[in-house]
Amino acid sequence: MTRWPLPQPMQRALALAQQAAERGEVPVGAVIMRGNECIAEGYNSPREDHDPTAHAEIVAIREAARILGNDRLIDCELWVTLEPCAMCAGAIAHARIGKLYYAAADPKGGAVEHGTRVFEQAQCLHRPDVYSGMGASEAAELLKAFFRERR
Amino acid sequence: MTRWPLPQPMQRALALAQQAAERGEVPVGAVIMRGNECIAEGYNSPREDHDPTAHAEIVAIREAARILGNDRLIDCELWVTLEPCAMCAGAIAHARIGKLYYAAADPKGGAVEHGTRVFEQAQCLHRPDVYSGMGASEAAELLKAFFRERR
Repeated sequence: MTRWPLPQPMQRALALAQQAAERGEVPVGAVIMRGNECIAEGYNSPREDHDPTAHAEIVAIREAARILGNDRLIDCELWVTLEPCAMCAGAIAHARIGKLYYAAADPKGGAVEHGTRVFEQAQCLHRPDVYSGMGASEAAELLKAFFRERR
Repeated sequence: MTRWPLPQPMQRALALAQQAAERGEVPVGAVIMRGNECIAEGYNSPREDHDPTAHAEIVAIREAARILGNDRLIDCELWVTLEPCAMCAGAIAHARIGKLYYAAADPKGGAVEHGTRVFEQAQCLHRPDVYSGMGASEAAELLKAFFRERR
């Protein structure tokens, strides 16, 4: 059986997640696209950077906003290997990200289809279109392998 | 009538909020204390910094973690002039902030006693002690004056 290949941004996000794992960080990677252009990338790095906010999504959003010279990432898409947490979902809303693609769901820490469900709150000022599941098994396997090694 | 003075960290957070207003940013200020020592400060600066995550709390948390060389701000307190949003409440939990003091409640964007109530979720891995209300009228007046001028 030949499997349909993952879209390139998710392949790249998975490679970034692998980079995080190699640096001893929980493997999550993120990419910000505008059309066919990759604007910014990030991987999870709170320990290395001494920054509790340095989740892959936040790293990529901050970098994209810096590069575009605008705190609103209109027409941008965020591709990330794991369901965003409350912090990251809040940042995605503040940044006005148009589309969110995430691979694996995260019942323990996710805040899109779990927990606080940030985008479903009446309070939420901006809701991206959300697509999930592509690359889920690959993303989950990276996380499982990481935590297996650490036990 | 002589009014009981506000604790010094909240006075400082209010002064930082005023600085934000003078730079055309929504006036919110934050201070991180460890014991009697001020570790870091921040004011809301998403537009000036081209950074949608640059809320006062995030600016102060990132700076404190950088200075302490640790992504966990154990034994630290965060003083902020407005109820934190979902993004900031998530960051406070990730940073393991011990105590959170905020002045004005924010029914529109707050995520502590409103909206997603991040710390009340079963998912939340760390809950700070929360104290609110001190300086609420001063903080609200800064916000009202800011939006009045912009109308």
